[in-house]
Amino acid sequence: MTFEAMWRDLAPIGRSASSGGYFRQPWASAELELRAWFREQAAARGLAVHEDPFGNLVAWWGDPASGGAVLTGSHLDSVLDGGAYDGPLGVVSALAAIDLMRERGVEPARPLGVGVFVEEEGSRFGRACLGSRLATGAAAWEDVAGLTDRDGVRLGDLVTGGPPTPWLQQVGQFVELHVEQGRGLVDRSAPVGVASGIWPHGRWRFDVTGRADHAGTTRMEDRADPMLTYAMTALAANKQARLAGQRATFGRIEAHPNGTNAVPSRVTAWLDARADSDAALADLVAAVEKQAAERAERDGTRLDVTAESVTGEVSFDPPLTAAVAADLPVLPTQAGHDAGVLQAAGIPSAMLFVRNPTGVSHSPEEFAETADCEVGVEALATALTRLVS
Amino acid sequence: MTFEAMWRDLAPIGRSASSGGYFRQPWASAELELRAWFREQAAARGLAVHEDPFGNLVAWWGDPASGGAVLTGSHLDSVLDGGAYDGPLGVVSALAAIDLMRERGVEPARPLGVGVFVEEEGSRFGRACLGSRLATGAAAWEDVAGLTDRDGVRLGDLVTGGPPTPWLQQVGQFVELHVEQGRGLVDRSAPVGVASGIWPHGRWRFDVTGRADHAGTTRMEDRADPMLTYAMTALAANKQARLAGQRATFGRIEAHPNGTNAVPSRVTAWLDARADSDAALADLVAAVEKQAAERAERDGTRLDVTAESVTGEVSFDPPLTAAVAADLPVLPTQAGHDAGVLQAAGIPSAMLFVRNPTGVSHSPEEFAETADCEVGVEALATALTRLVS
Repeated sequence: MTFEAMWRDLAPIGRSASSGGYFRQPWASAELELRAWFREQAAARGLAVHEDPFGNLVAWWGDPASGGAVLTGSHLDSVLDGGAYDGPLGVVSALAAIDLMRERGVEPARPLGVGVFVEEEGSRFGRACLGSRLATGAAAWEDVAGLTDRDGVRLGDLVTGGPPTPWLQQVGQFVELHVEQGRGLVDRSAPVGVASGIWPHGRWRFDVTGRADHAGTTRMEDRADPMLTYAMTALAANKQARLAGQRATFGRIEAHPNGTNAVPSRVTAWLDARADSDAALADLVAAVEKQAAERAERDGTRLDVTAESVTGEVSFDPPLTAAVAADLPVLPTQAGHDAGVLQAAGIPSAMLFVRNPTGVSHSPEEFAETADCEVGVEALATALTRLVS
Repeated sequence: MTFEAMWRDLAPIGRSASSGGYFRQPWASAELELRAWFREQAAARGLAVHEDPFGNLVAWWGDPASGGAVLTGSHLDSVLDGGAYDGPLGVVSALAAIDLMRERGVEPARPLGVGVFVEEEGSRFGRACLGSRLATGAAAWEDVAGLTDRDGVRLGDLVTGGPPTPWLQQVGQFVELHVEQGRGLVDRSAPVGVASGIWPHGRWRFDVTGRADHAGTTRMEDRADPMLTYAMTALAANKQARLAGQRATFGRIEAHPNGTNAVPSRVTAWLDARADSDAALADLVAAVEKQAAERAERDGTRLDVTAESVTGEVSFDPPLTAAVAADLPVLPTQAGHDAGVLQAAGIPSAMLFVRNPTGVSHSPEEFAETADCEVGVEALATALTRLVS
């Protein structure tokens, strides 16, 4: 089955008819369909599938027990109303790369696995790269089993959990292919490139508590309105990041009770912040938090800030990156990836990027040309052949 | 059954164990239970209940066909996480007033009805006083039948709808008792008072459309982030209203797709605005809209503002108000009420207020002393006795 045919298979799964975007949250129907599709594809290629206690999948070519395995793959879940490429491109390209290697008569000296990490986007339980964090031990099951989604469903009720199975201990190297999420390759007129590293980044929950009141009868000066504290914080975060060339976004907000004719009693919003060094990230978040606290004082509201996940700076493995592609453009990225989690856990990792003509990602408009995707498959097959030989 | 016993019956219905607030949205389980309770109370008193095509209820003492009826009552629905008193106090007090009149041997020369208007708060379909607007013809069924709640349920699938039954044509006067939602009676050290009129008020939906993007890889200067336009609008609305002694509140917001690691594609928020004259209200909303439009221009987003409901200034009927209570303190109110809708539709109306020690309303903390409620029942019974004699 060609790359294009596999891509066509996946196109309708979880796609919104109104926006054209994808809703592939983990363990919801679309994502379950993708997982079933992956198992079928693995079976058709004679690859044995292992599912770990968190729902991560790996399809093996060769016996991983022989050790020193090479892992490739990515994830199948999407953000809410996201694009088709972020994640699935790496999984489909991995399967296509295996087909290409076999056509060329490659006989691997080491086991080769195609991994599918679960909840990479954190769109359901709020923790990005949850599957790879659990598998590497960077997150402990007992700390996340009680997480609930927006409907109150517990993570612990969806998967077995418990201690990780040792499948990642059999992995010596990881190569993840991913659509680029900026315009670095457009600027360099190149269809594919490799990643140098990932910016430090994280998510912080801002809980602002005020006092519910009638929107008509309560004078403005008698209110303790958390919406005002939030609004000033969102503007301050944007300004701070803009001036410093960093990133700060409030994309998610929940007001309570969220009624038109009541001053809210509480506003909860999530700050996504990223910077080019650990120190710069800490400074950015501290500056936003300080301005929010000052405004809370003025509004008579209470501010509580909780770091939900923070990932330090990651540099991908230089020898592996050189082995993957010595001749490709090298780019940093501001997006978190499972490859960053594996690299931080001591598994040498590298990433290949495929050109994105608009740079738009986490959006229905995310796109890559089929011709560029095919160059990506070729580059991945070549790199994997080198690594498993 | 005494006022206190009836009040105790209602206390647990729709109450949140966590906040202590009430969730009594129309046609949801708690409100259906309140409606059943009202029918039982009417039956126990030998009052015949009529339900109109929109779900408004009226329980009649005497035959309304004889005309010139006097109507009292209020509503049973609450805002999300609201208080116990806003609405139910007027219904329970009406039933208690009938009991008191009967104890005193009153034999009405005119029919007396206890009305329960539906969706007064607009907490489910976004239109305040929806039941009374439909019953008076101020709103047309064909314009609202397609309204959907937050879960996509259509109003037209919940009630019959169609043209109003003529029950309000049998009503000559309306007296609504309500908990006060400010501290006017506290300042005057009086347990009850009467309303002079209602401030003009309304709801405007602000739809801000931007472009979804990755929260990490998209540079701040390349974004079209509707959250920023919203945040500035919320702050501008507050400042504008504060300076002018008016009211402007953004209590309800929906971001799309509402994901932490994506710049939102759209933010929708509702402005609740009120002022002491029709002209001042129009000026207030125009000023907020102008500032929002300027910021949208700067953010590269698009702003659409839709007036969802606007109610002009209402003065209650002076002769009726004098008949109800010549000797009570007179107060304006910034809150909309069904009595305002009936008055605007040409049915002479008046309102009685019961003291609220904190002035807090639309909040779990909303409160009135039982002793003050009993003074309210007494005042209502006296007024109704005068009107039906």
